[in-house]
Amino acid sequence: MTFNAKWNDAWDGFQAGKWNKEVNLRDFIQLNYTPYDGDDSFLAGPTQDTLTLWDQVMDLTKKEIEAGGVLDMDTKIVSTLVSHKAGYLNQEIEKIVGIQTDEPFKRSLQPFGGIRIAEAACESNGYTVDPEISRIFRDYRKTHNQGVFDVYTPEMRACRSSHIITGLPDGYGRGRIIGDYRRVALYGVDKLIEDKKHQLATSQERMTSQTMQLREELSEQARALAELKQMASFYGYDISAPATNVKEAIQWLYFGYLAAVKEQNGAAMSLGRTSTFIDIYAERDLQNGVFTEEEIQEFIDHFVMKLRLVKFARTPDYNAIFAGDPTWVTESIAGVGVDGRHLVTKSSFRYLHTLSNLGAAPEPNMTVLWSTHLPYAFKAFCAKCSIETSSVQYENDDLMRVSHGDDYAIACCVSSMVVGKEMQFFGARANLAKCLLYAINGGVDEKNKKQIGPAYRAVEGDYLDFEDVKAKYVDMMAWLAKVYVNTLNVIHFMHDKYAYERIQMALHDREVKRYFATGIAGLSVVTDSLSAIKYAKVKCIRDEDGIVTDYEIEGDFPKFGNDDDRADEIASWLVETFMNMIRQHHTYRDGVPTTSILTITSNVVYGKATGNTPDGRKAGEPFAPGANPMHGRDKNGAISSLSSVAKLPFKDAQDGISNTFTIIPGALGKDNEVFAGDLNIASILEK
Amino acid sequence: MTFNAKWNDAWDGFQAGKWNKEVNLRDFIQLNYTPYDGDDSFLAGPTQDTLTLWDQVMDLTKKEIEAGGVLDMDTKIVSTLVSHKAGYLNQEIEKIVGIQTDEPFKRSLQPFGGIRIAEAACESNGYTVDPEISRIFRDYRKTHNQGVFDVYTPEMRACRSSHIITGLPDGYGRGRIIGDYRRVALYGVDKLIEDKKHQLATSQERMTSQTMQLREELSEQARALAELKQMASFYGYDISAPATNVKEAIQWLYFGYLAAVKEQNGAAMSLGRTSTFIDIYAERDLQNGVFTEEEIQEFIDHFVMKLRLVKFARTPDYNAIFAGDPTWVTESIAGVGVDGRHLVTKSSFRYLHTLSNLGAAPEPNMTVLWSTHLPYAFKAFCAKCSIETSSVQYENDDLMRVSHGDDYAIACCVSSMVVGKEMQFFGARANLAKCLLYAINGGVDEKNKKQIGPAYRAVEGDYLDFEDVKAKYVDMMAWLAKVYVNTLNVIHFMHDKYAYERIQMALHDREVKRYFATGIAGLSVVTDSLSAIKYAKVKCIRDEDGIVTDYEIEGDFPKFGNDDDRADEIASWLVETFMNMIRQHHTYRDGVPTTSILTITSNVVYGKATGNTPDGRKAGEPFAPGANPMHGRDKNGAISSLSSVAKLPFKDAQDGISNTFTIIPGALGKDNEVFAGDLNIASILEK
Repeated sequence: MTFNAKWNDAWDGFQAGKWNKEVNLRDFIQLNYTPYDGDDSFLAGPTQDTLTLWDQVMDLTKKEIEAGGVLDMDTKIVSTLVSHKAGYLNQEIEKIVGIQTDEPFKRSLQPFGGIRIAEAACESNGYTVDPEISRIFRDYRKTHNQGVFDVYTPEMRACRSSHIITGLPDGYGRGRIIGDYRRVALYGVDKLIEDKKHQLATSQERMTSQTMQLREELSEQARALAELKQMASFYGYDISAPATNVKEAIQWLYFGYLAAVKEQNGAAMSLGRTSTFIDIYAERDLQNGVFTEEEIQEFIDHFVMKLRLVKFARTPDYNAIFAGDPTWVTESIAGVGVDGRHLVTKSSFRYLHTLSNLGAAPEPNMTVLWSTHLPYAFKAFCAKCSIETSSVQYENDDLMRVSHGDDYAIACCVSSMVVGKEMQFFGARANLAKCLLYAINGGVDEKNKKQIGPAYRAVEGDYLDFEDVKAKYVDMMAWLAKVYVNTLNVIHFMHDKYAYERIQMALHDREVKRYFATGIAGLSVVTDSLSAIKYAKVKCIRDEDGIVTDYEIEGDFPKFGNDDDRADEIASWLVETFMNMIRQHHTYRDGVPTTSILTITSNVVYGKATGNTPDGRKAGEPFAPGANPMHGRDKNGAISSLSSVAKLPFKDAQDGISNTFTIIPGALGKDNEVFAGDLNIASILEK
Repeated sequence: MTFNAKWNDAWDGFQAGKWNKEVNLRDFIQLNYTPYDGDDSFLAGPTQDTLTLWDQVMDLTKKEIEAGGVLDMDTKIVSTLVSHKAGYLNQEIEKIVGIQTDEPFKRSLQPFGGIRIAEAACESNGYTVDPEISRIFRDYRKTHNQGVFDVYTPEMRACRSSHIITGLPDGYGRGRIIGDYRRVALYGVDKLIEDKKHQLATSQERMTSQTMQLREELSEQARALAELKQMASFYGYDISAPATNVKEAIQWLYFGYLAAVKEQNGAAMSLGRTSTFIDIYAERDLQNGVFTEEEIQEFIDHFVMKLRLVKFARTPDYNAIFAGDPTWVTESIAGVGVDGRHLVTKSSFRYLHTLSNLGAAPEPNMTVLWSTHLPYAFKAFCAKCSIETSSVQYENDDLMRVSHGDDYAIACCVSSMVVGKEMQFFGARANLAKCLLYAINGGVDEKNKKQIGPAYRAVEGDYLDFEDVKAKYVDMMAWLAKVYVNTLNVIHFMHDKYAYERIQMALHDREVKRYFATGIAGLSVVTDSLSAIKYAKVKCIRDEDGIVTDYEIEGDFPKFGNDDDRADEIASWLVETFMNMIRQHHTYRDGVPTTSILTITSNVVYGKATGNTPDGRKAGEPFAPGANPMHGRDKNGAISSLSSVAKLPFKDAQDGISNTFTIIPGALGKDNEVFAGDLNIASILEK
């Protein structure tokens, strides 16, 4: 890449490096960021404009609730980067601009994932998609959803209907892709287009299907970047050149993100790792007297406010799985660099401080990349924010840094990926508890009584035998893994074909590492069930057709989440065994298979779809979330529960393991003095 | 497959066989057709209704010519199988119904190949595509043309612009696919849908990209068949069950074909090999007194009339390459079965007889599969039709039967494929004469003076040395073959992606053999040029930049088309060498590479794009068509010319070799008695 005069201005004062010659955000950050070890005393409160705007948002939120959950919906205009002209909350006082449609709280129409889903989303809220749009997407423009169902096998459909595989992104955007939105600010769009064109020019010319797919994608990416510029121009901004100050840097970055949510209603539309990047501009502007602390905080407040406005048109089904209407605008904060310097900056504080200035909110999902090496004052501030707002998520940076380095971010809740260099094919979840019941009943579903899995021999006799059940379970899991991976292959092939994430992938390198994510639901149910069969006596109760529909447990048995190796070893065996079965199958685009154990909300839906289990759980009862113990079965407290989780093999569940727990403030320390509690939180996090 | 009562009626009197249990048209034909050895005396003239309808067609044709070539164009309705309700010439008297749009001579709007081409086709005729349609196909529904240009390399674009590769189907339908339209009549659509669903159900479940592509295509095929039924219902026909008489058989078959031309404006939309199939129904109806000869001829006349009405919206460029507005509705007639019985039936006569009843016409392209074993009376009838109408094409069945059996047909002019079992990826042509000039000038184009090919060493000195030029030519052809094949890979990948031939492929087996066609232009120019360099002396004339732009030949040299082995061996070497270079490259979907030498009309365009050549041909002068000798250079008559062609290696040009010539009737015999002339034609054909 080459400099020009305009760029020299924009980059004035920054230390040059590799980032001047190639798109390399990490290099820019490492060379230019200012670690901050101080406390939160420098932070500024909300400006009057911020309060006014936020009141307006609160008012709209109230109206939205009154309207039944949706205030307005686009039914005629298909959302693209350039489908809508500028829209504002209050143009006079907004410092960071840009919304998804022409009006705040109006949900955009996104049919590329599936026109029927888009129609259903509208209808469930009392709106109707313009028939002409429906016709276009039925007669001329096939959607992801249609493509998937054209290819599915009857077996895949059956697994879907019986909920042994659930939450598949086959009718909506798969999400879990983080565009490196910082690139827009650092380089400006023209340079990124030039880079994409160069990538195309230097791509393979032997036209295999793979090559052609890549080449077409690069062309689409360049086209999307051109549209991004056009989108910004509607707001009066020329983002062809780099941002020249912190306000522009935030604005440019946000335009990149806004483009992504205009184009995709992905299951998780995460933001990346932006605070330390933004801080470099903030520091420069503070030093040069361009902006005050109050102004910078206001930019960040307004930016975060915009992120909170992101909404999608979704169906009640969708909301049931995700327990609401999450967007997973995850921002990864702090962490430590591979050179040992922590990555906490003043802007790490400023981002978290929006939870005070605007009030607590689940979005954006503020995620602290936790490390023992984070500075004391920042840890204390995190603990304070957690206690005051319950809106901070923590992830183990010391663990993830090993494989991902120091410029990764979290997509959704736990999926880590190097920003702009890695992405994930989101894989929903296989219900391993139901799979155990299939093993017992020879593939017959315990709820709908249909033969869904293969007709292997069912369990015979009155009592379950551990070795017998285990052998049958291994066979049934092998079947499930095969159907599951192939189902995901269909989904990702069709998503690329009919709903490709143009702008998000435009903000990636050409050579992207793709994780092929899968997920497990029911870990603790299966573990406790197998433990009961092994260590207690489990009697089968059969229905009139001989199908086992209930169980009676005689005696006690070790349960997951109590730091008891007898149970925990079963859990580890389960994760490793299933993951190795996943690995045996062809994955689309050579995606690297991973698994997660992180049903944070969908555990309720999974439980509803699953009959009685041999651990004593009753039909319809929720599973434990993620890798949590079943409710009430962890008798030894949070630390034991975490210890059980810690034994799970991370190499076999690299996409993340979640253990959700709530701490009652009083339990944290002998007195209720906040600061002591803070440090106790910090101490648990370091376990 | 299973029978039902309705079917038993439809198939009553037919000899059962494999065709009852599987889609097997050849089996049905072989078991049921009645070879006819008699003469044309049974034929019926046109009915009054036929004459009335044809007058109407002639009147519309006159109006079309007066209107400048196009009478009306659809600018709002995108052509799909079900886009238009019924349209008629004259509903009262038409025996076979169905037109492409709602009015005869109104050209349909087909943007899937390329919206810009569709717009250009309209604009060049004074029409404008509805801006909303343009927007849909720009913003929502990408087209084949856009896909191709997203992937092309600069080298491919340059080869296209400089016309060393031309006529590429990258902005319109590739054509050259023959649906087995007979299947619609024999089985009815429901059975075909059932068959496609069965194919899907029994297709591979390991989801590789190839598997998923096939599975999606099978789903699309089933969907297209359902639309075919709907289309027929607009005309009051239920084609879900088999046709029960000859009129229905023709109508069902024609609906299949009509669906194809509603969906695709392919470069060649050929019909297949239908006359002997139809004859089986005609014989049954004659025997049962269902219809008279006059009625049957009327059905065929009206059917052929409908085929003559097929028109597409095309650009002046396109028409220049194809010298007009051809549709290549090729019907393959007669031929001989592998069991030795000829396949001539009364309906073979009836089809050709339409040339008398309606008058001569280039479409449908009546092609006789000529064999020495055809019955005398039929040969005589063919000769008579040829002399009277100049509208019969002949192809060598004895040659093609060896590799293709007895149920193949010709697509376009010479491409042979087994009906419903083989298809072709149409490949346009590489200009080998221009390639020779590139070899001489080190990759610099002799017309635009740009470096198009690789910058290999150019020829030095005043005189061309045969071995030097040949070595350089081999290198340059190797380069050209690589670019050419990769360009075609892009085209066929994108055509499948954005303009897939749903209904045509629905009338194919699941496992289709795909020919990856390429083509050669300039055979005789190159042959004569190399011959001149070898056997005479060729002096280079250079321009001010040292580029060779003209040649002076000293002495005489052997020329292609005179049965002179010295020239003919060069031609054979050229075909074999280039074809082997084509074979060295990866082809999309494992297409089997073939080459054709058959520029029947585009030779003019190729000549225009090519500078002076070392054979003495001047810049801009047309090439000879196909494998013809250059104009005026064949001194030894038609038989010698054909002998030269016959030496070309068919195994290296399996897609066909054409040699077009005109015979002045007086030259055929000493007297002008027609029958003698007929047999002389027959005798030349048997050479």
